[in-house]
Parts: sequence; structure tokens; C-alpha cells
Amino acid sequence: MKPNVAAAKAALPHLDLDTSEAAIRAKSRDFFWYSPVLKARLDHVMADFVVSPRSEAEVIEVLRTCYAHDVPVTTRGAGTGNYGQAMPLAGGCVMHLRHMTGVKEIGPGRVICEPGILLKDLDTATKAHSGQELRMFSSTWATATIGGFIAGGSGGVGSCTWGSLRDLGNIIRLRVVTMEAEPRVLDFRGEELPRVSHAYGTNGIITEIEMPLAPAYDWVEMFVACDDFMDAVRFAEDLANQDGILMKLGTVFEAPIAKDYFQRVAPHVEPDTNLVGLMIAPHSMEGFLTFLGRRSEARLIYRNDEDDWPRSPGPVFEYGWNHTTLRALKVDPSITYLQVRYGFPEHKALIEKMQTALSPEVLQHLEVLREGGRVIFAGLSLVKFTTEERLDEIVRMHEDAGAMIFNPHRYTLEEGGRQTVDDRQLRFKREADPKGLLNPGKMIAWDDPDWSYDRMYAYPKLQAAE
Amino acid sequence: MKPNVAAAKAALPHLDLDTSEAAIRAKSRDFFWYSPVLKARLDHVMADFVVSPRSEAEVIEVLRTCYAHDVPVTTRGAGTGNYGQAMPLAGGCVMHLRHMTGVKEIGPGRVICEPGILLKDLDTATKAHSGQELRMFSSTWATATIGGFIAGGSGGVGSCTWGSLRDLGNIIRLRVVTMEAEPRVLDFRGEELPRVSHAYGTNGIITEIEMPLAPAYDWVEMFVACDDFMDAVRFAEDLANQDGILMKLGTVFEAPIAKDYFQRVAPHVEPDTNLVGLMIAPHSMEGFLTFLGRRSEARLIYRNDEDDWPRSPGPVFEYGWNHTTLRALKVDPSITYLQVRYGFPEHKALIEKMQTALSPEVLQHLEVLREGGRVIFAGLSLVKFTTEERLDEIVRMHEDAGAMIFNPHRYTLEEGGRQTVDDRQLRFKREADPKGLLNPGKMIAWDDPDWSYDRMYAYPKLQAAE
Ligand SMILES: Cc1cc2nc3c(=O)[nH]c(=O)nc-3n(C[C@H](O)[C@H](O)[C@H](O)COP(=O)(O)OP(=O)(O)OC[C@H]3O[C@@H](n4cnc5c(N)ncnc54)[C@H](O)[C@@H]3O)c2cc1C
Ligand SMILES: Cc1cc2nc3c(=O)[nH]c(=O)nc-3n(C[C@H](O)[C@H](O)[C@H](O)COP(=O)(O)OP(=O)(O)OC[C@H]3O[C@@H](n4cnc5c(N)ncnc54)[C@H](O)[C@@H]3O)c2cc1C
Repeated sequence: MKPNVAAAKAALPHLDLDTSEAAIRAKSRDFFWYSPVLKARLDHVMADFVVSPRSEAEVIEVLRTCYAHDVPVTTRGAGTGNYGQAMPLAGGCVMHLRHMTGVKEIGPGRVICEPGILLKDLDTATKAHSGQELRMFSSTWATATIGGFIAGGSGGVGSCTWGSLRDLGNIIRLRVVTMEAEPRVLDFRGEELPRVSHAYGTNGIITEIEMPLAPAYDWVEMFVACDDFMDAVRFAEDLANQDGILMKLGTVFEAPIAKDYFQRVAPHVEPDTNLVGLMIAPHSMEGFLTFLGRRSEARLIYRNDEDDWPRSPGPVFEYGWNHTTLRALKVDPSITYLQVRYGFPEHKALIEKMQTALSPEVLQHLEVLREGGRVIFAGLSLVKFTTEERLDEIVRMHEDAGAMIFNPHRYTLEEGGRQTVDDRQLRFKREADPKGLLNPGKMIAWDDPDWSYDRMYAYPKLQAAE
Repeated sequence: MKPNVAAAKAALPHLDLDTSEAAIRAKSRDFFWYSPVLKARLDHVMADFVVSPRSEAEVIEVLRTCYAHDVPVTTRGAGTGNYGQAMPLAGGCVMHLRHMTGVKEIGPGRVICEPGILLKDLDTATKAHSGQELRMFSSTWATATIGGFIAGGSGGVGSCTWGSLRDLGNIIRLRVVTMEAEPRVLDFRGEELPRVSHAYGTNGIITEIEMPLAPAYDWVEMFVACDDFMDAVRFAEDLANQDGILMKLGTVFEAPIAKDYFQRVAPHVEPDTNLVGLMIAPHSMEGFLTFLGRRSEARLIYRNDEDDWPRSPGPVFEYGWNHTTLRALKVDPSITYLQVRYGFPEHKALIEKMQTALSPEVLQHLEVLREGGRVIFAGLSLVKFTTEERLDEIVRMHEDAGAMIFNPHRYTLEEGGRQTVDDRQLRFKREADPKGLLNPGKMIAWDDPDWSYDRMYAYPKLQAAE
């Protein structure tokens, strides 16, 4: 079962093949380097060639050909993922879906499209068609694809109202191609969706997507300042619990994140300013301002529809979700992050506990999230990195306190998730990828079913560094 | 300050005046007769004349004229209220807003209209304009006005997602005319809204309304059956807590409500069937059916988009909210109802306690409601009426258990609400209705500030029965 890369390439000359070394190197990387742990392990990873199919038929052709020649296939949307999700650990083929950008059908509350369209372009199309937009998007809206969001992401701007991608109703249907001698095309709904959503393309390639839509509004984007951190947390939570105020984003930044890392915000805040980033529907602004008027601890310092800052801060959502980490990293390259779930009803107590124990080594960055009908917080905490040991210790401190960690310093599905095998994904991989060629090294359960999770998993077939 | 009705009528001949006795009698009544208590006290109430202004200018003229001649003015939308809200306890003028049906402006997420338009007609206009509809409506959608809903109602179909009318953001702006020597026209927003919303027109007349809109969908209406009552309650709550499933109605009917009172449903259920009525967005149906598939205790027995019942049950929302009482009353005239708030987090325990203690004398009819971001239940329990004493005892049992009662057997704002003076409404009445002519007898705080609430309030100037 040695891959025959040359034979695979030779069989696909009529497709859009990229064999320039620079291009292959660029398309073999994602935002794994947010993590110093992954940076140390994956920096050298590189595919053998890149192919960009123009249609589902060409996707099938790539998968059939690579299957025949035992060549691994790692699918790429836009490569904005953070876990090395889209990196070809064992080399082989990167299948780049940048040509598959069609919007096939738009109706009330739904859209059908191809996977390679950028979130931004999809929203533009549905907005122009009927004033609709995606319920939620990754903060990489401007650069990421819908297919990558579904296969690699979890939620984002909009999740304060609609919950996460995995919640029932947030994906309607996925069309999936398997990697077999003769690839099959399957339509998944309902209980079948979790087989391939957030599976990193390890068990099938998504070629068509049906998503629910919400009405598109000219969201009012704002920054609110609080002197006290927990006041800012309560402000965001209480606002999200206002049933009549429609909200798309609620982000809390512990001081001094705003002053130290948000260049265009810095002139308007102090080092001890805790900041709340918001997106509120225009017709909810009366309600919002009434709510704000009741909170003397909160000051509205910016709204994009009355922008009087000499230098506009740009979209407020590009301060939230994993853009916070990006902004901090640019100022202080030693910063990395953790993903935390602060669950109901202990969320506020847990946040306060972690903040008290770890600030300023760990600075709280929180996203309002709906889970099971409740407002909770997802933490994308900023961590001042020193050593891998200390990072592991910080992870343990969270877990011991009862705050679940989704570790972004690991490249496997299990370690970035709940550290358990997802049986639905594993079972479907057995069926859909019998040779184990799809994005190899990302599903521990496939390679080493008895893995104990007592240390970081190292994929045995990871390309050797030169 | 004796009213000079003749002088007022004489001053308004150019308006649409109705002086036929039959018409006046009809326009002096609402659905007060749901309550045997109110039926016994208000059946004879009758205005002296009815006037139907065509514009805000004519509203002002009516108010100025009646003020000059000390004539009480009770405003009428469509008279579908249940507390005698729209009944002229001291006679005088009924001001009927049926001509004021204009839709002035529709934009993304909002509509501006006149108060006398029917909820149904407003939805038709906003739907035709841009696929939008009201966030919530009274189940009297087909017959009630938006002005009456705001001045007399509380919430309804849509409140499972958006909360109640009183929640921030669910009314944007109200334009209000005062009853003074020279009536003023005021625009209310934010903290000013509660002065006149749900004030029964006791302190100002709403002449223009700005409401938020939600997207209009072809809601899938369904009935789900459960053998166990608490299973039905949990089904409705858990469904409402699914953040990705968009819902407009979730109603639970304890057995044998469906069998005994829902004629067209009866052939499809058993006496021990507990029923759940639902409205789900079409693009959430995949998610809903997945949810349903996980609940072996629940059977989908009807959906309006695949209607295979020989006699269609009609709109499912016309089984919920106060339509449940109406259907029960038609079969068993001794039935009346109570309004209960089962608050978070004790709601399910309270419901079970009341059901165990009082069924079948009191049958549980529950509506899913959002309150402060949480899913709770509003009860519109069906009560087999025997005596006023027993009814009061049932009220007390609820209150003792911790379930708040909004008593629908009282005609005052306070007794139908939280039994306390609403200072905002009282203060505004002092300013806007100095002679106390607007819908007299409905605000205890105005007539008798020291009232102790130890028994049912009786308005001293209530018209004497003949
Ligand atoms: C600054 C920044 C902010 C971010 N914010 C968020 C956020 O708010 N929410 C969030 O969830 N994530 C976030 N991320 C992570 C990432 O950007 C998103 O998940 C994004 O949607 C991924 O899209 P992509 O097109 O770049 O996917 P890629 O990175 O190209 O792919 C992601 C994964 O999906 C697989 N894949 C891609 N397309 C397919 C397909 N058609 N079929 C099968 N598998 C496929 C890939 O193999 C890979 O495993 C952020 C990242 C950065 C760098
Ligand atoms: C079968 C049935 C089901 C019902 N379901 C619901 C429900 O789901 N939710 C709910 O909230 N209610 C419900 N109700 C009560 C009632 O139908 C609603 O509140 C309805 O919206 C009232 O509208 P209307 O036009 O009939 O108002 P009316 O009954 O005419 O008036 C209601 C009150 O508002 C005042 N008013 C009317 N217009 C104005 C104005 N422009 N300015 C100032 N004051 C004004 C009146 O004086 C009166 O006090 C129900 C009633 C019945 C009989």
C-alpha cells in the first residue's frame, strides 16, 4: 500500500493540477502556527501535489484515482483552520475546492450551495436574492469556505442566538462522496449529519450543502466598556437573555486586551477597560439602548452607524472568536490560546475562578453561546506561552475546576474534542474510506483504537522533517 | 362633573357616530363572559354612543369634546379581550378604532401602522411587502387589532421564541394622544412604553404603532400525542430549548382536553391522549423530525402540510392560548380558566404538583414561553367552575405553591396583573387624563389608592343593572 503519487498525477492531467513547489507548500498549511506546540511538530508538512476539481464529477475522479494508487487525500477549503486540520500529514494530494463555488438554490430560510464558496460570497448571494444570510459564520467570514466551516468549524458569529453548527437544525443536508474503488454519492440528513460534520474530511468529501438562513440585517456593531470584568460578563449574559433583543455577537475581553492588542480601539480605552463587542439588529436598537440605560456600569464607546473615531476599527466581529488571538499574536508572538466551555449554570462562577487564578498569564476572552436553550460562554482565552508543560498544567487546572477544554494544541479530532472516539464518524469511515486515505492521522480511533489519551498523540506516519 | 352625553354627541355629528341601541350594546361587550364572575357583574354594561374616528385628528376631536363635557371614553379595538377590558363600566362613549387601519411604512425588521388594523391584515401587508410578519400575535389573529393586542394583551403565538410584549424590543414606538382640554400627541420609546402598553387605554390612546418584524414562513403546524402528561411537558420544553429549531408555537393539553373539547381532533386521539400543538419553520422540519425520532414517547399524528384527516382541524394556533378555553366552553359551558405563570427553574415541578392536586377539576393547558432567556410555561388552565369561593380557593392553592396567578375573573389592571399599582401607569394617568375619563374603573390605584386587595374590587361608579 505504498502511495504511487506519480501514477495518480499522470492519470489527472486534464484537471487543474498545481505542481509548483511554492504553491504546494502554501496549500499544505493552515493556521496551525497559532499553537507553538503544533508549530514545532507540523511546520515541515507538505503535500506532493494540489488538484482543484471544478465539479463533483471531478471530485469523484480525484478520489477514484487516488484510491487506485493508494494516495492520501486531504481536502482544503481555504486553509484557515487552526488545528492543522487541513494539513496533509502523510503527504499525497491536497484537493482544493476553490472552484466549487456555485449557489444552486435559494428559498425562504434555506440555501443550497457548493462547498468551496466563501462565507462572505454566500451571504452576498442570499442577501441579494432575498435579504437572507447564514445563521452563523466563522469570524473568518471574509476568507473561509462554507465547506471548511462545516467540516472543521464549530460555530461563531450568530451562535449567541442559534447555538452551534452541531445543534439540530443548523445544517439541513450534506451531500457526501466516499473514497472507494467506485466512490458513492450519499445524501445525509438528521442523525446522519454528525458522521461528516466536524470530521475534518476524514471520512467523506462534502460536495453540496443545504443550510438554514436567517434574515439579513444591517447589524449595528458596538463596543461597550466596563471597569469591572465580571460586570462586563454579566452585561453580555443579561443582554443575551433579553428575548426581544436580536443579537448576533456578544464578546467579552478582559482588560488589558483592548488596550494592548486592539490598535484602533486602544486610543479610546484605558489599560483597565474591559470591553464588550456587540452586533445588534437595527430594529432592536431601541430595546438595546433602554437596556444599556439601566446599566450605569457600562459605557457605549463605539457604534459603527455613528462612527466618530478618526480611524474606523473595521468589523467588530473581526475582534471576536479566533480573531482575538490573531490580534494578540501580532503584538506579542508569545501569545497562544485555549478553548474552554463554561457550562450552565456554573459558567459565571467558573469564569471568575479561572480569571482570579490565572490572570494575567491567561486573559479571559469570552463568547456568548447558546447551548440547550441556555446562554453560556465559550472561552477563547489568551495564554502567555512559556512551556508545553505549563500549558498542559493550565489545561488541567481548567478541567479540574469543571471547565471543559477543547485543546487547540492537538491535531486529532479526539484531542481537539471531547477526548473520546466518535463512533458515528469511525463507523462511517470504515465504510467510506476503507483504505484510510482521507486526511490521515487526524482520527486516533482509526489508527490506534486503544489509545489512552495520557499524552499528546503522535501520528506514526507523520512526514519526517528534513 | 356630571357627564353631558347629549352635548358631546351634538358636537360630533360630522363623525361616524353609531346610536342604534343594538350596535351600542354589541360594541359595549367583549369576551368578559369567559368568566362566570365577570358575567354576573358586567352583563348589563352599555355605553351611550359609539364613535368611530377615521384619523388621529378625529381621535383628538373626540377626546377634546368628551373632555369638555366630562364624558368617559372607552376605546375599542375589536373587543376580543377577556377581562371586560373594553367595556364602558360608567357608560359614556365607546371610541371604536375600526377605521384606523393604515399601514404607513414597512422596512427590514419593522412596520409602522395605525392601531385599528387586524393582526391578520397587518401580517398580510408585511408578508406581501417583504416576506415579514409580526414576531408574536394573539390567537385571535383573525379578529383582533394590533392596538388592542398592545393595550390589552400580553403575548401569544411567537412568545415561545420572542418572549412577551412587555419585553424590551418587542414594541419599538407608540404614539399616544392624551385626554386633556387640549389633547397632546406624544411619542413613546424605551422606558416610556410601559406607561401605556397593557394599560387598557386608561391613560392615553395609541394612534400609531411601530413594531419589530420577523421573517414570515409557511409554518408547519402539527399535533404530537403522548400517553404521559409530563412526557408531553418535557417534549415541549426540550424542543423549545433546541436553539437551531425555529418554533412559533408549543402548546400542551392535558388529557382528555383533546378528546373532549377538540371536535376535529377527537376521532384521532384517545381519552388519555395528552396533546402537543406545534408550529415549526419549514426549514427546521429536518431538525424537528430528528428530535422527534429520539422520543419514542411521542407520536406525530397530524401535520398541516400532509393533511390526511377527512376534516381538517384548521390552524393549530386556534387550539392554543385562549382558544383552548373557547373550545372547551362551547362543549361544556361550566368551564372557565385561570392564567398561571410557572417560573424557572421550578416550572415542571409546579406543573406536576398542580396537576396531581387538581386534575380533573383543573386541566392543564400550557403554553411554552420565553422569559429572561429561559423556557418556562404559561398556564391557561381549564377550570370546571362550581362556585366563586371554590375558584378563589384554587387561586390560593396556586399562589401558596408559588405559581403566580393573573386572575382573569377581575376587571382591573391590578387584579389581572401582579396586584400592585404600576407607578408608571398611574403617574402618566395623572398627567394625561386629569379628569379620570379614560376607561374608568379599570385602575384601582386611581380610584382607591389604599385598596388592600383582600377581596374583589367593585368599581363604585359601575353602571347599575336595570
Ligand atoms: C482568525 C481566525 C478566526 C477563526 N474564527 C473561527 C470561528 O469563529 N468559528 C469557527 O468555527 N472557526 C474559526 N476559525 C477556524 C476556521 O477559520 C473556520 O473553521 C473556517 O470556517 C474553516 O474554513 P476553511 O475553508 O478555511 O477550511 P479549511 O481550513 O480549509 O478546512 C477545515 C477542515 O475541513 C476539511 N474540509 C474542508 N472542506 C471540506 C469538504 N468540502 N468536505 C470535507 N472536508 C472538508 C479540511 O480537510 C479541514 O480538515 C478561525 C480561524 C482563524 C485563523
Ligand atoms: C379566543 C381568545 C383568544 C385569545 N388569545 C389571546 C392571546 O393569545 N394573547 C393575548 O394576549 N390575548 C389573547 N386574548 C385576548 C384578546 O383577544 C387579545 O388581547 C387581543 O389582542 C385584543 O385585541 P382587540 O382588538 O380585541 O382589543 P380590545 O378587546 O378591543 O381592547 C383591549 C384593551 O385595549 C384597549 N385598547 C384598544 N385599542 C386601544 C388603543 N388604540 N389605544 C389604547 N387602548 C386601546 C381597550 O380599551 C381594552 O382595554 C384572547 C381572547 C380570546 C377571546
